Amino acid sequence: SATMPGSLPVNAESCWPKDVGIVALEIYFPSQYVDQTELEKYDGVNAGKYTIGLGQSKMGFCSDREDVNSLCLTVVQKLMERNSLSYDCIGRLEVGTETIIDKSKSVKTVLMQLFEESDSWLFLMVISVCFLTGRYALVVAGDIAVYATGNARPTGGAGAVAMLVGPNAPLIFERGLRGTHMQHAYDFYKPDMVSEYPVVDGKLSIQCYLSALDRCYTVYRNKIHAQWQKEGTDRRFTLNDFGFMIFHSPYCKLVQKSVARLLLNDFLGDQNLETANGVFSGLEAFRDVKLEDTYFDRDVEKAFMKASAELFNRKTKASLLISNQNGNMYTPSVYGCLASLLAQYSPEQLTGQRISVFSYGSGFAATLYSIR
Amino acid sequence: SATMPGSLPVNAESCWPKDVGIVALEIYFPSQYVDQTELEKYDGVNAGKYTIGLGQSKMGFCSDREDVNSLCLTVVQKLMERNSLSYDCIGRLEVGTETIIDKSKSVKTVLMQLFEESDSWLFLMVISVCFLTGRYALVVAGDIAVYATGNARPTGGAGAVAMLVGPNAPLIFERGLRGTHMQHAYDFYKPDMVSEYPVVDGKLSIQCYLSALDRCYTVYRNKIHAQWQKEGTDRRFTLNDFGFMIFHSPYCKLVQKSVARLLLNDFLGDQNLETANGVFSGLEAFRDVKLEDTYFDRDVEKAFMKASAELFNRKTKASLLISNQNGNMYTPSVYGCLASLLAQYSPEQLTGQRISVFSYGSGFAATLYSIR
Repeated sequence: SATMPGSLPVNAESCWPKDVGIVALEIYFPSQYVDQTELEKYDGVNAGKYTIGLGQSKMGFCSDREDVNSLCLTVVQKLMERNSLSYDCIGRLEVGTETIIDKSKSVKTVLMQLFEESDSWLFLMVISVCFLTGRYALVVAGDIAVYATGNARPTGGAGAVAMLVGPNAPLIFERGLRGTHMQHAYDFYKPDMVSEYPVVDGKLSIQCYLSALDRCYTVYRNKIHAQWQKEGTDRRFTLNDFGFMIFHSPYCKLVQKSVARLLLNDFLGDQNLETANGVFSGLEAFRDVKLEDTYFDRDVEKAFMKASAELFNRKTKASLLISNQNGNMYTPSVYGCLASLLAQYSPEQLTGQRISVFSYGSGFAATLYSIR
Repeated sequence: SATMPGSLPVNAESCWPKDVGIVALEIYFPSQYVDQTELEKYDGVNAGKYTIGLGQSKMGFCSDREDVNSLCLTVVQKLMERNSLSYDCIGRLEVGTETIIDKSKSVKTVLMQLFEESDSWLFLMVISVCFLTGRYALVVAGDIAVYATGNARPTGGAGAVAMLVGPNAPLIFERGLRGTHMQHAYDFYKPDMVSEYPVVDGKLSIQCYLSALDRCYTVYRNKIHAQWQKEGTDRRFTLNDFGFMIFHSPYCKLVQKSVARLLLNDFLGDQNLETANGVFSGLEAFRDVKLEDTYFDRDVEKAFMKASAELFNRKTKASLLISNQNGNMYTPSVYGCLASLLAQYSPEQLTGQRISVFSYGSGFAATLYSIR
């Protein structure tokens, strides 16, 4: 903007620390769970409604000795101890949660108990300079998701993830490739102050989630195309360029639908794609559909679920281990998927692979970025 | 730490953008208010209890057409319009509030309505690189403070502040001088989900606030002493080195007590201070008191209130205009004090003056830093 008094530092690029990303990750979830086949029986619904329809096997829940504060305290303490780190190494703390114990005291002030001996705090309100001063950022996400009886209940879960973010990381955030989309929507909220349960409009939530995915993927592709053109490469980005794809997971079936959705994006984005054979064979009937008309189109969904099945099995399924066995943890959900990947593949198998990360928060704010 | 894989960039210092600070500030508070003398009559308390005892004249309150979202939307829109800025100029948004409408949807997602046309969003979760890419950070703080009938009610208020933070600012954050102290305490919380009102333990809150002030000032002074020693200067920092002093203001009287408290810190920190004449005259009896024993010591308070009266009038009183006329806005409180200063002093009067800023949030997290 012409009116902007701030000027861009000339050496901005050279200033950026090398290979910023996730240096360490710790996950914690409750030890108790409800078996979803038992919940089907208890709720008197058809067998398979939760296990096959939603793709969920177990749902973690907290005991009366646990709350969101204890989940977060545990996961942070474990992360620090396991990496033999002093709390003085942390220059910035970010906490994400949608679970509250009261209406004003933040989880962050509770986490301060761990840091009381540390005097390393920088100015927290505005500027994250920790990388420039050699300190880590600590990102903590934790939630307890409980729903009223009915369709939403089997999508519950609980857990927390803590991540150390800094330079020279083994999992590096790819720069300049983030596709973000935010919108003011009441796709999920808790207006009833005396109830633990949110108000759920499942259909609206799915539309918000999938439309955010469409928008983020479009922006991501545009950015990578621009980067490639600069480098003199003139080819289109497709899902083949992702080694793995992980997603915020309200329930596993929606993630499977998301892979199908991204394949639909690839298909509609390139009119030259071969429909005679390969993954797109037999899809010529869908050449002229519009993304925004297909959120609930069963034919499109079915066709692209089928076309993307192998892609899903190879690039996404393993990441759903914790989501399947513990349920939706809300804010740490997508990092639970990352933990699932890390637990099942060797460093050698992951090296050089571009992992797409679709992060989603109701209300809503979504980002598609990638890790290498 | 020896185990830290991240390394410090060699050119960290040269990377820091020049003169980062507050580029623009906008404040908004409701147009309705309760006159505190009328509230004294209505509550049947002694005349002067609120006006003199707390130092409050008026208390702003919202109409049924306003909520914390509308306060924040208004103040952001005004800031952007008045500075002819496009929403594309903003690379990071931070929102601080203790007022909730529901238990999950954040005010930030509501503010997204203003940004919907903008595609400039960076990765919001972790890294603030906006200064390195020439964008501003936008900091929004807003609250509606309502209390149950009783002692706390007259300390209510409502309002929002939006600030543009970036390089080449007219109000520059002094680097390396922040004194921060955080602690897990229930000095203020809202455990009753159906009530708008917090649970207040006034005595605990005052002790938390004043002990945080002591700790922050100690750290701040130690840091500036270290800076001065490096430069070869060997003198002690005192309140005389601040041109103005502003504070988070639960009510004006506590701020006046805070100035007295800082003077007590100066007094106890330097045993050589002259008690025969000057501001410390007649205070020799307090030579051996300990800071932590004096939070509720009437004699100490009275003596240091008197000793600091002139200091308060000259360096702090003007900053309490909005706090006195509108009440406590919670999160934007201290920036309301900054706005009050800016409204009453000319740029010439403020130039070269070091303004101390004591920011406090219940629970608690406090920082003393300075602006030039």
